Amino acid sequence: MDAPFIETTFYVRYAETDAMSLVHHSVYPVWFEEARSEFLRQRGTNYAEIEAAGYFFTVTHMEARFHAPARYGHAVTVRAWIEAARSRGFTFGYEVRHAGTGQCLVTGQTQHICVDRQSQPCVIPPWLREAMRGKQGA
Amino acid sequence: MDAPFIETTFYVRYAETDAMSLVHHSVYPVWFEEARSEFLRQRGTNYAEIEAAGYFFTVTHMEARFHAPARYGHAVTVRAWIEAARSRGFTFGYEVRHAGTGQCLVTGQTQHICVDRQSQPCVIPPWLREAMRGKQGA
Amino acid sequence: MDAPFIETTFYVRYAETDAMSLVHHSVYPVWFEEARSEFLRQRGTNYAEIEAAGYFFTVTHMEARFHAPARYGHAVTVRAWIEAARSRGFTFGYEVRHAGTGQCLVTGQTQHICVDRQSQPCVIPPWLREAMRGKQGA
Amino acid sequence: MDAPFIETTFYVRYAETDAMSLVHHSVYPVWFEEARSEFLRQRGTNYAEIEAAGYFFTVTHMEARFHAPARYGHAVTVRAWIEAARSRGFTFGYEVRHAGTGQCLVTGQTQHICVDRQSQPCVIPPWLREAMRGKQGA
Repeated sequence: MDAPFIETTFYVRYAETDAMSLVHHSVYPVWFEEARSEFLRQRGTNYAEIEAAGYFFTVTHMEARFHAPARYGHAVTVRAWIEAARSRGFTFGYEVRHAGTGQCLVTGQTQHICVDRQSQPCVIPPWLREAMRGKQGA
Repeated sequence: MDAPFIETTFYVRYAETDAMSLVHHSVYPVWFEEARSEFLRQRGTNYAEIEAAGYFFTVTHMEARFHAPARYGHAVTVRAWIEAARSRGFTFGYEVRHAGTGQCLVTGQTQHICVDRQSQPCVIPPWLREAMRGKQGA
Repeated sequence: MDAPFIETTFYVRYAETDAMSLVHHSVYPVWFEEARSEFLRQRGTNYAEIEAAGYFFTVTHMEARFHAPARYGHAVTVRAWIEAARSRGFTFGYEVRHAGTGQCLVTGQTQHICVDRQSQPCVIPPWLREAMRGKQGA
Repeated sequence: MDAPFIETTFYVRYAETDAMSLVHHSVYPVWFEEARSEFLRQRGTNYAEIEAAGYFFTVTHMEARFHAPARYGHAVTVRAWIEAARSRGFTFGYEVRHAGTGQCLVTGQTQHICVDRQSQPCVIPPWLREAMRGKQGA
């Protein structure tokens, strides 16, 4: 049974900082996305294969709340989980924490719809829904 | 009297696209920020001077809704305006449109607090509030 | 007759700075590319159409020398020109200057080969070579 | 005794791709930098501490040769080593390989000078030179 969330930990890259010496706020959607990638890898699939099969997860909405800044020299842990699943889409939730202290830095959410090669919204096929759900029976 | 919003138009950069051949969603916060920069320039101030004076506009929340994709080869127009002003912060609203067709692509919002050199929230000084308000008497 | 180079001027974006309060060095290739885009637009074509016609300009080498830093608050002017043209490729040269003072900040070069939809190197077609050359008869 | 090089392996992020479905060439300097960071961490120091001590490694030149593209779905291994050391600076070399196949994708080099808090070039202090050299006695 898979845990309902995944976590991935990595170092802040210097290029991700800005002149305030903080991680620029536009970087967090990139980390969220990398956590989604890791979510799929930990469930035994990956987004490259999903695209190769003709399914694309378009972002329709994103939101982030910034509680405390990340800085170069920090390692951060990003947790990602599925907050809601619909026939044609789903919502991911995220939490970014300082890997050393555990302090919560940023929380966020992205909403996605599944589109086909013609960019038309489509029902997520059962194999993909299974794969995203993992072995947790949820 | 200044208009209550500003607009800035520029071409999509190739580096801003992703493997779906669309502008990556993490790019829009960068465009929103550039529109804030232009907002201040059109009101006769600029954010570099504001930082030099010891005031920093930290992002506390951001949100974006993606209606249609921007692509390389497009010029886009970003409109920015102040949605709400508080003693220690403000909210900006944004709309990104295809410059040629006028189609609305993305809408969004960022919330900011003003912090001092010690990263402590502080009241926005009157000169800065005036500058941001422009000559519209609003 | 077209000038042998183009220039494009824009403001540094805050997101392009790093914790040293300078424009991060990985940003200059993005500016070089935007100057190539502008080079083509000023010659009446554009890279989106070139890709639509089945030709892609792959970067095979890049180089940049950093003389002085760009900072947020600066406008910069990027000059781009064709340094060398070959049957299957070409070399662009670049110079980034502070738009206000004219100080030279960065110089660079990118080498490209033309590839087709199968990613195979191919001869640049005459119409494209003409378009890139402009009306200068060079 | 430390190996004369370090290696770090990570997944390509989706945001790092472009409309050609390849990793955009401006991403490689970011990976080179992350490999430098890892180089220092593996030698028991880190660049955040070096900056806190008042020393900054400014990039004066960079160069990259692109042999084959990286794509989303790939893991890549970046190898970094010191090619040359001078009293006030040093040169790093890099090689990016496909982590699965070992294919060489990109090679590159960056040159750096050490500057102080006033942005003046300065001699690299002995403790820092030792730290960068590692325990290899080289």
